[in-house]
Amino acid sequence: MTRPRIVIIGAGFGGLSAAHALGGANADVTVIDRRNYHLFQPLLYQVATAGLSPAQIASPIRAILRRAANVRVVLGRVSGIDKQRRMVKVDSLEIGYDYLVLATGSRHAYFGHDEWERVAPGLKKIDDATGIRRRILTAFEHAESMAPAEERARFLTFVVVGGGPTGVEMAGAIAELAHVALRQDFRTINPREARIVLVEAGPRVLPAFPPTLSAAAQKALERLHVEVRLGTPVSNCDESGVTIGSEHLAASTIVWAAGVAASSAARWLGTEKDRVGRVVVGPDLTVPDHPEIFVIGDTAHALGKDGKPLPGLAPVAKQQGAYIAKVLRARLAGKNPPSPFRYRDWGTLATIGRRAAVADFGWLRLHGTIAWLLWGLIHVSFLIGFRNRFVVMLDWIWSYVTFQSGARLITGPGSH
Amino acid sequence: MTRPRIVIIGAGFGGLSAAHALGGANADVTVIDRRNYHLFQPLLYQVATAGLSPAQIASPIRAILRRAANVRVVLGRVSGIDKQRRMVKVDSLEIGYDYLVLATGSRHAYFGHDEWERVAPGLKKIDDATGIRRRILTAFEHAESMAPAEERARFLTFVVVGGGPTGVEMAGAIAELAHVALRQDFRTINPREARIVLVEAGPRVLPAFPPTLSAAAQKALERLHVEVRLGTPVSNCDESGVTIGSEHLAASTIVWAAGVAASSAARWLGTEKDRVGRVVVGPDLTVPDHPEIFVIGDTAHALGKDGKPLPGLAPVAKQQGAYIAKVLRARLAGKNPPSPFRYRDWGTLATIGRRAAVADFGWLRLHGTIAWLLWGLIHVSFLIGFRNRFVVMLDWIWSYVTFQSGARLITGPGSH
Repeated sequence: MTRPRIVIIGAGFGGLSAAHALGGANADVTVIDRRNYHLFQPLLYQVATAGLSPAQIASPIRAILRRAANVRVVLGRVSGIDKQRRMVKVDSLEIGYDYLVLATGSRHAYFGHDEWERVAPGLKKIDDATGIRRRILTAFEHAESMAPAEERARFLTFVVVGGGPTGVEMAGAIAELAHVALRQDFRTINPREARIVLVEAGPRVLPAFPPTLSAAAQKALERLHVEVRLGTPVSNCDESGVTIGSEHLAASTIVWAAGVAASSAARWLGTEKDRVGRVVVGPDLTVPDHPEIFVIGDTAHALGKDGKPLPGLAPVAKQQGAYIAKVLRARLAGKNPPSPFRYRDWGTLATIGRRAAVADFGWLRLHGTIAWLLWGLIHVSFLIGFRNRFVVMLDWIWSYVTFQSGARLITGPGSH
Repeated sequence: MTRPRIVIIGAGFGGLSAAHALGGANADVTVIDRRNYHLFQPLLYQVATAGLSPAQIASPIRAILRRAANVRVVLGRVSGIDKQRRMVKVDSLEIGYDYLVLATGSRHAYFGHDEWERVAPGLKKIDDATGIRRRILTAFEHAESMAPAEERARFLTFVVVGGGPTGVEMAGAIAELAHVALRQDFRTINPREARIVLVEAGPRVLPAFPPTLSAAAQKALERLHVEVRLGTPVSNCDESGVTIGSEHLAASTIVWAAGVAASSAARWLGTEKDRVGRVVVGPDLTVPDHPEIFVIGDTAHALGKDGKPLPGLAPVAKQQGAYIAKVLRARLAGKNPPSPFRYRDWGTLATIGRRAAVADFGWLRLHGTIAWLLWGLIHVSFLIGFRNRFVVMLDWIWSYVTFQSGARLITGPGSH
């Protein structure tokens, strides 16, 4: 008798937690991903701002799943799903499934202005992060060697679009790079003259947090010399800079942290999706009329207990991955299915810079040094692989003590 | 009175050691490099074989020279030198000099077959190393997902061309990756089936070492299951593999570690050069008839005490950099010049793999575990920056104990 085949697409937080929980199950599990590594995305902004190296926040998927002998990993790009024949198209192959898990995450959305992506890259992949790092460091280099004051000001202006956690973290980290780490590195320019602008269309930064914490985050940003611009959306991005309302900010570096859209999962399935492209799923995270297809993480529209869709956060994806593994194990064993999925919110955190972060646990709200230490502790403890945890912690302690950051390399296609 | 202007082109071992030694001198020093980092090239092969991360062996030039207030750094590409007007052309700028130091290193040579570079990349820059890492790791991935046995064998064959230190290190490190680190990662293939071939046109590996150590190195390579092919040069490289004499080796990954040629320095200067393009310099490392122009490191043809040209090694470049700084300081102070440059050979080392290396101190020849420990100690102690030293050492100890390597990421343009 052949064993049931479970195919998981995507090795992010959701897919990996499902694969982990299915290790040793009586099924053949295949994990498909376009990349050979799992990325700890919450720390990707630190790669973009030269604090960490890519290998410190990424681990090979094969190595993570090495001990699960019933799990195999396929490196490839999925181009479609045939629900009738139960086949996934991967490059030139077709992989059959009995159960399918879609955990394909999200990508950037430019609100109909995809041409902005070229000048205002977002932060999803390692190559995005090393690309943004190259832009930021090269801007200081150009400013150093440029004569006209106007040009110099443009190179020293950094605009971050979007006031969510990623935008706040990016703006804070660029400000620290300019004001602290690079302080003594240049002779013609003073990196402290750099202007860092955070643009948010809504009325406050960190809109998902309570207003008191938004205010604390804004104060912390301003202490780091970040200009916070609220209430006006970006109307244009190009080589010359960013236009906010009627004002033009001349800037050579723009980082996009504003919108996300779900992956292509809904298109592959041809099922109902919400406004941002997420697949609408039932209480057990399956697609209507397809109990064999599960959708989890950023690409799923699942309802929380308040009747609102769950946010695109790592803990949601991880809990959903573990949950559907439980559902699958019950089905494989012919047992009753577990009760519907319920997200347990342990709290959310966002960091701004040295000794500045906010934490919302519902019953407790923190900001400042304590929140920052908590943020560091939690992020390091969730990093995959003991070695990475240890090395990242050392790196942070090192940067904290020396005011230096370790990975200030300009690499990649544009760097000769 | 304006201070004399010293321009140093290249921030490798030679240029950096000159700049360091000129810190605080009564002159304005400008260091020009195409890249913003100094690279510890002797460990670059470990980036190519996923042992170390780029940031562990590279440090920003500005950060290294931060404390030398009379030294400024310019990031740019030199396109020519005007000896009459004493000007260096850098991108769209011209930088004037009173003294010029050329420390521009070497690049790969394909013996008139530049078309081989595309399929058989060499190892000089960080992007070379991450590119080779991508090729090696992707080859295993293709082998895992490929059905026909013939194709699989081609993907699992790795050919390293050149039996010098870099070739030996690369072959040994690929063999360890396949036989040790990746051992349990795949389901369809057994990475231990990988075939690693080291091709050397001469009669023995490590030709610069004494024959007994060459023999020891070859034995150590063979213990790691590396096939060593001696005495036949490569006659062709293309997508299908490598041709040695009349034999064709089907291989998807080829690494070039065979020939080096000097940089463009001789062309810029229009002076006498040797067979591999190095600038012929006098005993004080200046160009004939141009006492204001110094050439050091891999791009200089300077004679050793045996009358033969000095080899292209890091210690030679470093000693030459320190020497010309002494010459310049003497000239600036109007003192007598120091005696001609003499290279002090402290010995050479090459590593093959876990507990396998060779060391030649002239009076003492070592191989095996002791040589390997020495190699590690010396390389870590020369790494720039305490943080890098410490993190690299931890990484090595970690890999040694766990048999894992830390940076197995497929990144860059070809990786989606």
